[in-house]
Amino acid sequence: MSAPNPAYDLAAFRADLGAIATEDNPKLVKQKSRDFFWYSPVLKRQLDDVTADLVVTPKSEAEVVAAVAAAYRHGVPLTVRGAGTGNYGQAMPLSGGAILNLAEMTAVKAIGSGFVVAEAGAIIEAIDTATRAHSGQELRLHPSTYRSATIGGFIAGGSGGVGSVRWGGLRDHGNIIRARVVTCEATPRVLDLTGDDMHKVSHAYGTNGVITEVEMPLTAAYDWVDVLCGFDDYVTAARFGDALARQDGLLAKEIAVVAAPVPHDYFLRHQKFIRRDQSVAVLAIAPFAIGAFAAFAARMQAEILYRSDTASDEEKKGLPPAYELTWNHTTLRGLRVDPSITYLQTLYPAPDHLEKVATIAGIFGDEVPEHLEFVRFDGDVACFGLPIVRFSTEERLEEIIALYEANGCPVFNPHRYTLEEGGMKQTDAVQLAFKREADPKGLLNPGKMIAWEDPEFDFTSEKTYLFKGLRVAG
Amino acid sequence: MSAPNPAYDLAAFRADLGAIATEDNPKLVKQKSRDFFWYSPVLKRQLDDVTADLVVTPKSEAEVVAAVAAAYRHGVPLTVRGAGTGNYGQAMPLSGGAILNLAEMTAVKAIGSGFVVAEAGAIIEAIDTATRAHSGQELRLHPSTYRSATIGGFIAGGSGGVGSVRWGGLRDHGNIIRARVVTCEATPRVLDLTGDDMHKVSHAYGTNGVITEVEMPLTAAYDWVDVLCGFDDYVTAARFGDALARQDGLLAKEIAVVAAPVPHDYFLRHQKFIRRDQSVAVLAIAPFAIGAFAAFAARMQAEILYRSDTASDEEKKGLPPAYELTWNHTTLRGLRVDPSITYLQTLYPAPDHLEKVATIAGIFGDEVPEHLEFVRFDGDVACFGLPIVRFSTEERLEEIIALYEANGCPVFNPHRYTLEEGGMKQTDAVQLAFKREADPKGLLNPGKMIAWEDPEFDFTSEKTYLFKGLRVAG
Ligand SMILES: Cc1cc2nc3c(=O)[nH]c(=O)nc-3n(C[C@H](O)[C@H](O)[C@H](O)COP(=O)(O)OP(=O)(O)OC[C@H]3O[C@@H](n4cnc5c(N)ncnc54)[C@H](O)[C@@H]3O)c2cc1C
Ligand SMILES: Cc1cc2nc3c(=O)[nH]c(=O)nc-3n(C[C@H](O)[C@H](O)[C@H](O)COP(=O)(O)OP(=O)(O)OC[C@H]3O[C@@H](n4cnc5c(N)ncnc54)[C@H](O)[C@@H]3O)c2cc1C
Repeated sequence: MSAPNPAYDLAAFRADLGAIATEDNPKLVKQKSRDFFWYSPVLKRQLDDVTADLVVTPKSEAEVVAAVAAAYRHGVPLTVRGAGTGNYGQAMPLSGGAILNLAEMTAVKAIGSGFVVAEAGAIIEAIDTATRAHSGQELRLHPSTYRSATIGGFIAGGSGGVGSVRWGGLRDHGNIIRARVVTCEATPRVLDLTGDDMHKVSHAYGTNGVITEVEMPLTAAYDWVDVLCGFDDYVTAARFGDALARQDGLLAKEIAVVAAPVPHDYFLRHQKFIRRDQSVAVLAIAPFAIGAFAAFAARMQAEILYRSDTASDEEKKGLPPAYELTWNHTTLRGLRVDPSITYLQTLYPAPDHLEKVATIAGIFGDEVPEHLEFVRFDGDVACFGLPIVRFSTEERLEEIIALYEANGCPVFNPHRYTLEEGGMKQTDAVQLAFKREADPKGLLNPGKMIAWEDPEFDFTSEKTYLFKGLRVAG
Repeated sequence: MSAPNPAYDLAAFRADLGAIATEDNPKLVKQKSRDFFWYSPVLKRQLDDVTADLVVTPKSEAEVVAAVAAAYRHGVPLTVRGAGTGNYGQAMPLSGGAILNLAEMTAVKAIGSGFVVAEAGAIIEAIDTATRAHSGQELRLHPSTYRSATIGGFIAGGSGGVGSVRWGGLRDHGNIIRARVVTCEATPRVLDLTGDDMHKVSHAYGTNGVITEVEMPLTAAYDWVDVLCGFDDYVTAARFGDALARQDGLLAKEIAVVAAPVPHDYFLRHQKFIRRDQSVAVLAIAPFAIGAFAAFAARMQAEILYRSDTASDEEKKGLPPAYELTWNHTTLRGLRVDPSITYLQTLYPAPDHLEKVATIAGIFGDEVPEHLEFVRFDGDVACFGLPIVRFSTEERLEEIIALYEANGCPVFNPHRYTLEEGGMKQTDAVQLAFKREADPKGLLNPGKMIAWEDPEFDFTSEKTYLFKGLRVAG
């Protein structure tokens, strides 16, 4: 494949950037042009050669403003990058241009009772380290990429994670207090978005503004106890996860259920605790709740395979934290053992999610070993599915998706790089309207918002959207 | 009425108490023999003359053990007292004897990350004052009698309250970590109950042990913002309360909905903010969530009548905290204006609680102005009803109860002084078994556990249980 020449004057753009740090070594640029899109064999085929021309690394909001103004002036596509851990190809610069790398904007600017203000490039774990030291507080929610992902990337590209079993999803009202956003205009504006305005930019893949600073709610920090519970049967394990999630007084930060043989086969460091035929609940429990939890587990006949609070140093040696067995880390551990697998993201809506769990398990068996994440959803308990898929063909993958949907489980297709196809299959009118206002030239992360690129696109056609501006390296 | 002579030797009992403080002034004894039973015209008729012979006020667990041993030796009925704010007549010494007054056992003994250890007689607000000062923590739940009730009385007699919209009920696993209990035997044992064993003594009215110390979970303390929202229509207000309770990311500690004209007529200090035809949602919102809350309220077309964070000092002068408009304080404020009213306690079970709310409102209208308390219940949102009842006759009260139950809303009858009739209308086998073990002579709070007094009692008979040992003052 050969890349069309970029439709802008790179040299003039660079000159305009002045003292702002840039990088054009193609190898390094390509590194910073990639995320975890390769989780998907479909995206791997489509996007493997995508790359930008330049990485721009601002050190301050003023430099972001200057860089965005320069991009606007010269018509340079601009794809914001946090840590590049997204796995829908969100951070892939489909039209080339510049990567706006926020890795240097990591300041934790203020901590108060129940909130923290940080620059968008701050690593999530680093924020918690600061808030814990300051006043025993921590973020409510974090992706399982806690140790690598940025807070800005989480808000722009993530959806929830560890903590969602207590606090719901990232986009639920109150889970983000404020986002400070730079628009892509001749004279960029800096807007503080709060309340419902948050939805303009949360989970918008950076298509309509650059988030430079966020204010997030905090909650009490604890030394969470990692627990693995084993079950002979996956549906029993799912019932356990649900029952535990319903214990309003029993504080858990994470409840995942992973069907056999995935835990034994893919959780290599924990393998010694797990029989191959065991489905496993992976949990993080507040230390002061462990007594109540142990009583609950005994009543539910859950076999406790591992508890970090009672394990010996020998047993704990080399073990990752339990949350790195959950959310998209389950799949990552699988990919390391068997690169031919892939995965899906689905929702089992309440109130009959457990029946759906049993139905789906009956349909696929070991072709699609299920992985559930229990969450609060509109005030009730429900679960997401992040099943491993033993990939054969793209056609079969589509069939599997169709079977989930036919059984009442919507799929957030992680084999698509657009907001709409990866999400709810419809235009987000608020995000589109804000893009019209904040990115009139359509330079921010091109190709990710179908509503902008192709307002006529028919979401019911079952066709995959292919961005016409896709530009791949030679 | 004339009191039968007590069947024990008071002088010998007193002699055995040694240096433990006692009080026998009949006026003072009667004061400490009363709780808020008079909320109920039925209990008022039955219990107004009930009194003990003596108040015993231990200063330590050792003194509790000595007092209980002495009571056992001499066969003296013993009714434990915290602050006497219960309103099912729980703390009324039906067989006379001694009041074991824990008012002097108020030490906060330890505070750690997520937990506090306190003596049972500690006032709930005082515990929070200590935990806030220590590390910005507070109890998850408190009754609206926060400023007067003891933690031991809450566990032995209460059920939930402010905070239950987040954490569920007091008896939900994890909401009490440990209770230390003295048994009433020849040689009293001191037991630390945890896990499922907690249920032996929680909400057992002190019929099977004296709680001397408790360990409770803590959560992050905030300067909660009091908010009143007005609605033209009660059912709309209920829908608002439910929707708010479902906002998993919008931290609220209290969501009550009170039907017009109760807020205007009975919330005298807040009357200036409320029109008579307005139903009101009474809320406590985390300060950092107030932006998200305001956006939510606007979307729901709720009229914000009052916000403590923006009210002037002039406006705030003399106002009680919002939680003192909720739970049983709603009724208390009503009783102060119109002593002829009474109330009920009911549950609107999920998932169709809002339909039931509308149905019940249609049945009673202004005879039973409803008051809802939204809570987490088995992982879902539901609401309790604590309606004001414009009392006419005991027969009509029974009819009203029957109508609630016929419409799927169980009533926890606050016009009955027994555990069973005030609760779920069945024997609690665990509490009964523990009473057999821990109070073999049946001296602890006699007459409150039907299963113990009259194992043959037929709960389906619709008859009221009348304790044969009821002993009233002359
Ligand atoms: C192993 C693994 C586990 C994961 N677990 C989870 C999980 O539990 N929950 C979850 O939600 N996700 C999860 N993810 C996805 C991803 O890690 C998270 O969403 C993460 O928070 C993204 O942060 P990042 O800094 O890597 O963002 P990036 O990947 O760099 O960016 C994500 C998107 O946001 C845009 N963006 C980044 N920063 C900004 C900004 N400042 N302003 C505007 N737009 C911006 C990018 O352009 C891109 O579209 C997982 C991924 C992997 C590979
Ligand atoms: C205006 C008002 C509002 C209220 N709001 C609420 C509310 O929101 N939620 C709620 O649950 N309740 C509520 N109540 C009921 C009551 O106030 C609470 O349950 C309170 O926690 C009781 O504490 P106390 O110290 O007053 O207990 P007491 O009334 O002294 O005792 C209650 C019961 O527990 C027993 N007891 C007390 N201490 C011990 C001990 N150490 N060991 C063993 N047994 C013991 C007593 O014998 C009695 O049976 C309210 C009552 C009123 C009048």
